[in-house]
Amino acid sequence: MTSESGCEEQALKPASAFSEADRDAVYRAIETRRDVRDQFLPHALPDELVARLLAAAHAAPSVGFMQPWNFLLIRDQAVRDAAWEAFRRANDEAAEMFAGDQQTLYRNLKLEGIRKAPLSICVTCDPDRAGPVVLGRTHNPKMDLYSTVCAVQNLWLAARVEGVGVGWVSIFHEADIKALLGIPERVQIVAWLCLGYVDQLYREPELAVKGWRQRLSLEDLVFIERWGRPASLIAEAEDRVSPAS
Amino acid sequence: MTSESGCEEQALKPASAFSEADRDAVYRAIETRRDVRDQFLPHALPDELVARLLAAAHAAPSVGFMQPWNFLLIRDQAVRDAAWEAFRRANDEAAEMFAGDQQTLYRNLKLEGIRKAPLSICVTCDPDRAGPVVLGRTHNPKMDLYSTVCAVQNLWLAARVEGVGVGWVSIFHEADIKALLGIPERVQIVAWLCLGYVDQLYREPELAVKGWRQRLSLEDLVFIERWGRPASLIAEAEDRVSPAS
Repeated sequence: MTSESGCEEQALKPASAFSEADRDAVYRAIETRRDVRDQFLPHALPDELVARLLAAAHAAPSVGFMQPWNFLLIRDQAVRDAAWEAFRRANDEAAEMFAGDQQTLYRNLKLEGIRKAPLSICVTCDPDRAGPVVLGRTHNPKMDLYSTVCAVQNLWLAARVEGVGVGWVSIFHEADIKALLGIPERVQIVAWLCLGYVDQLYREPELAVKGWRQRLSLEDLVFIERWGRPASLIAEAEDRVSPAS
Repeated sequence: MTSESGCEEQALKPASAFSEADRDAVYRAIETRRDVRDQFLPHALPDELVARLLAAAHAAPSVGFMQPWNFLLIRDQAVRDAAWEAFRRANDEAAEMFAGDQQTLYRNLKLEGIRKAPLSICVTCDPDRAGPVVLGRTHNPKMDLYSTVCAVQNLWLAARVEGVGVGWVSIFHEADIKALLGIPERVQIVAWLCLGYVDQLYREPELAVKGWRQRLSLEDLVFIERWGRPASLIAEAEDRVSPAS
């Protein structure tokens, strides 16, 4: 019992809040991160930088410590051209689903940077990574996919601090990209990410700037104790929080 | 055309890499974030702090700028007790799915802090938030769930810098928690998060410390151009990256 407690103590280490400067840095990464479609600069990302981004992704939480992700790096222009063709076909189908002015606006939006960004990363989830029964996935079969999304978000924030923009492309038939990259049947594609250096980003999400959809009030999305019960204390707290610089 | 370009210029702003100190802060948040089950301290989280965490979540990327998330704050002990009962029932079922020594180890793990942590946040996804056809969800119906997970990961990293631990509970029947909180049929629960101040965290993920499952080699999870093609350049780059302090 004593030795177990000793191990436990060694495994735990002090963890306090960050300094104000370090805290601000993390909030700034979160607030200024954007989904980039067109601001990519052409020069290649160094291997060391890509390794840091992947290490950040690999540090994500995962259900049952399953680490279900894989990362396929795609630099080859021919492969990116083929992926873009898959996007284009799906995007034509997508445009047809919108009516009237909305379809016109949709067709005028640039929704991907597959050919412009020098690097794409296809992020996948292997449900068989830790056997058929996974701690924490027993009652929610999507938990492995959610873990993989956490890896994507870690990578995205790390990219922001490196001066690298990321765009998440979701408009394609999964079968097309799986065939292109030789991805096994059991494995699911979670994200196709486009990456490249950027020297400017939108102040607000591009879809808001372009008039597609505006930011919702956070206050309306927060409830207390039960669905639909307004959380006025949050609104009051927000008034007291100094605005982000 | 000129005025449009002008608007575009105003909407874009310079965005460079962060300073080395700020970059290190973000990587440190990513690397030291843990899934907390037992280290929660009892004192309440101030409203201002909770508002900052929710604002970080609300800054997540979302498909079609849909912002499909809601956040239900649960402080009431009776509600948390009821949620814990739902966990306990599901966890007994889960334990039975593991055999022999693995079941023994499973039963010895503490997998949640619902009653110990002073605040729970139930994070949900409303698929109807932006109408039936959503930009970017046309070919992947899970994109709204993925957006909601990005919000969870933002909140988790923000919590780390605030000295707040977060634990993601996934072992319950969704119907039990939906009934408890009055969540509408159409809305999906993505995460039940337990939050509280912490003054220590595990050096490595708790499931590794407790011998459940170890960290995989990142090198084995990265491919180049095609599934299964090793990315030796990443291994080489990793050797050159200085280890995190």
